[in-house]
Amino acid sequence: MQDELVNVRLSDDGTSVVILDQTLLPNETKYIQMQTPRDLYDAIATLKVRGAPAIGIFAAYALYVLARQSKADGYSGFCADVAEFSALLNSARPTAVNLSKQLRRIEKLVADMAALPVPVILSAMRGEAESIQREDTDMCRAISEYGLTLVGDGDGVLTQCNAGPLATSRYGTALGPLLLARERGTELNVYCCETRPLLQGSRLTAYELNRAGIDCTLICDNMASIVMGEGKIDAVFSGCDRVARNGDAANKIGTSGLAILAKHYGVRFYVFCPSSTIDPDCMTGAEIVIEERRPEEIREMYFAKPVAPPGVKCYNPSFDVTDNSLITAIVTEKGICYPPYTQSLREFFGEKHDNN
Amino acid sequence: MQDELVNVRLSDDGTSVVILDQTLLPNETKYIQMQTPRDLYDAIATLKVRGAPAIGIFAAYALYVLARQSKADGYSGFCADVAEFSALLNSARPTAVNLSKQLRRIEKLVADMAALPVPVILSAMRGEAESIQREDTDMCRAISEYGLTLVGDGDGVLTQCNAGPLATSRYGTALGPLLLARERGTELNVYCCETRPLLQGSRLTAYELNRAGIDCTLICDNMASIVMGEGKIDAVFSGCDRVARNGDAANKIGTSGLAILAKHYGVRFYVFCPSSTIDPDCMTGAEIVIEERRPEEIREMYFAKPVAPPGVKCYNPSFDVTDNSLITAIVTEKGICYPPYTQSLREFFGEKHDNN
Repeated sequence: MQDELVNVRLSDDGTSVVILDQTLLPNETKYIQMQTPRDLYDAIATLKVRGAPAIGIFAAYALYVLARQSKADGYSGFCADVAEFSALLNSARPTAVNLSKQLRRIEKLVADMAALPVPVILSAMRGEAESIQREDTDMCRAISEYGLTLVGDGDGVLTQCNAGPLATSRYGTALGPLLLARERGTELNVYCCETRPLLQGSRLTAYELNRAGIDCTLICDNMASIVMGEGKIDAVFSGCDRVARNGDAANKIGTSGLAILAKHYGVRFYVFCPSSTIDPDCMTGAEIVIEERRPEEIREMYFAKPVAPPGVKCYNPSFDVTDNSLITAIVTEKGICYPPYTQSLREFFGEKHDNN
Repeated sequence: MQDELVNVRLSDDGTSVVILDQTLLPNETKYIQMQTPRDLYDAIATLKVRGAPAIGIFAAYALYVLARQSKADGYSGFCADVAEFSALLNSARPTAVNLSKQLRRIEKLVADMAALPVPVILSAMRGEAESIQREDTDMCRAISEYGLTLVGDGDGVLTQCNAGPLATSRYGTALGPLLLARERGTELNVYCCETRPLLQGSRLTAYELNRAGIDCTLICDNMASIVMGEGKIDAVFSGCDRVARNGDAANKIGTSGLAILAKHYGVRFYVFCPSSTIDPDCMTGAEIVIEERRPEEIREMYFAKPVAPPGVKCYNPSFDVTDNSLITAIVTEKGICYPPYTQSLREFFGEKHDNN
């Protein structure tokens, strides 16, 4: 991509983390620079940076930036400071698995370097954060290459929510093949579902695709049926938050409905995710607990005035589970899994796959 | 209902049409009065009045109000003025069959009264408009009685858009059975889809149901799959804008998607409409032209700030067509039609059914 979105990076002097403030999109493309514990914490808590991989990368850089500020004059004081900063960052989004995972990775590195001087440790921390980002880029790139084999010139692709560069390091998962297609000169017609209630499809995905020069048409979520019925869609590309052993996939609310429509209309339905998203401890989608969010997201958020009567009850589940029977294939950085998933996922990831 | 919503009426002096401005709901319950051609046209075009029957009633009153303003001094000039006003009103919503139908009904009356003085014709026009409204009330009541036989105490019903009193004269079509159930003490759990982009479900249906004291839960359109999957829904109640001879039904965008989900989950899917909605000139849904509306409705309308990049393309079809194979029954004021519809609809309405 000529004009790349870099949503998380370290400042050149290494003293702060620079991010594209996602809360201002799509109206303002503004990069902000942060170095205090409070600002770094807030960036995660207030969703200035979002998307599981992006949060992980951000946290790794943030921990390095904060560790530099340690006044401790020996290893043990330094270690205590790192632990404290890590705990602070980790508390910003208590349920974000990637956040705690990457913080633990940096902390482990620090623990393993007890014999070495602090400046050397700091330099290693920076390198490790850069590795986390590079690994994510490589992973997204591999997913994108596999995904690109699934579509051809002129195909119509429907996507929802945001699984693009803003949520990751570069390329993204479900959007990766679309961005790569653009780089390689393959023309796709992409339809984005706006994705209520938080509108990640219109605010973020339409922004990213538009910016990359991809032919992109925004629709409301309830228009997916008509665009499929009109023959405009060859494949649905979906991100994914968690995959069970049997291939059931939890993702943004509405995904299961798109999969049912795709099946009805004979449209292929693909799920894109890092292999680490597959949870070997989860047998089926029935075990996945669905997070419920506040009614205000439906009744008020983003609107100039409330759009529903103040007292009215809302049901606001954040995710739903798509039955494995509706999924044409699951695309990861290690390759493409086809049904039956109980078998194909095991072949790919093995019984001892490390999900942490 | 003790506390009745009257959404369209003639002012007491007969010089203007009074409506409950539906664009201000649910934050403001405001009645507005209109008498100029532009204001009356705009009320339809900008959805201040909406819902096929309500638009028909409104148009009949509006044509009367405008005809009173004719400066013509003879029958032929008066007739030409009426034709011009009628064409103007008719152009406000191209897909609305009821609009052109009720305008033609009034025009036919005027044509049949060529021998009579204009004041007599005007008086007959007013009477005809009142008849249209009264007939609609009777019809909605009959639809509601039939619909009530399809649900029992404790049932979960999913509805979308607004086919309630605000869309008609009283009771409504799809919401009629729910309101009648409440009057008779039958407890239903109703789920309303918010119905993007214009949010008739949250703004109007949730308002009407809440106001009537019915247990009502608002969801985003992309949550229909999860609520059906969780077993919360026994039946979907949908309104309808036009039915083809084979039972294909055009209605608010998203209806076809709900019907596909209902079929997938084994949930009954009912369409409620006046028998006049069945168009004997329309063989299948493929003949129905779908109205497309402005991209701003998706990108900006109702929001505090635009939620999508300014240049992004939008596809904004107002309706979709639900295939007859997905419809459990079509409920009209004349009774309940079951498949095969090509036969059952004919039995109900006959080859000579006057749809004009």
